[in-house]
Amino acid sequence: MDSDEQAIRDLIARWFDATKAGDVDTVLGLMTDDVVFMVPGQEPFGKEAFAAASHGMQGAEFGGTSEIVELKVLGDWAWMRTRLRVAITPPGGKPMVRRGYTLSILQRNSSGHWAIARDANLLAPEVS
Amino acid sequence: MDSDEQAIRDLIARWFDATKAGDVDTVLGLMTDDVVFMVPGQEPFGKEAFAAASHGMQGAEFGGTSEIVELKVLGDWAWMRTRLRVAITPPGGKPMVRRGYTLSILQRNSSGHWAIARDANLLAPEVS
Repeated sequence: MDSDEQAIRDLIARWFDATKAGDVDTVLGLMTDDVVFMVPGQEPFGKEAFAAASHGMQGAEFGGTSEIVELKVLGDWAWMRTRLRVAITPPGGKPMVRRGYTLSILQRNSSGHWAIARDANLLAPEVS
Repeated sequence: MDSDEQAIRDLIARWFDATKAGDVDTVLGLMTDDVVFMVPGQEPFGKEAFAAASHGMQGAEFGGTSEIVELKVLGDWAWMRTRLRVAITPPGGKPMVRRGYTLSILQRNSSGHWAIARDANLLAPEVS
């Protein structure tokens, strides 16, 4: 595995760990300033809306698993498919489980760090 | 606009026109053999499943609009965001309208033609 691929795998692991830890600032540091998030049935949104939504979920417990299914590095850009299962448990509430795939575009910034630049999130409620 | 960007815009226009015309073979020729389509709440699927689904919709009328919102060419690869509104009317049925965004990865093949390689489709039923 080349060093870019390893760096991107580390980025995804850090994203997941920081989300579980409720460390919003670290997660925000792992995306570009012009990041665009896409989810079904909603207009695309950026970093500020992501931050607001994350702060609104403070106190919730995050769990789940993430697996990189495909990863292609193209110079200072890369694309990646991941399979995710995410369980979010609000304080005193029941876990909401969503699973599915993402297609993401990553970009290497001028200081050499990889970051999420575009993300299409196709997760849907888990059918039990 | 450079020639790759123009070629990709032409590809999207051809895809849309061929879909409207029910010309499944042309659409299949505009994707790579290892294409992966992703939609919410379903496992990813490839060219064969796309073909089967398209043949199953023969006789339906397609309409709609498509707009490329972002397009970034990276050598023999590219990524693209589009905004779509698609209306499908089964024979004797009522139109089903879906709208939203896609994030796609394109690849240039050895003969120089661009094709869709990965596609995340975030369209949801239109709320009227």
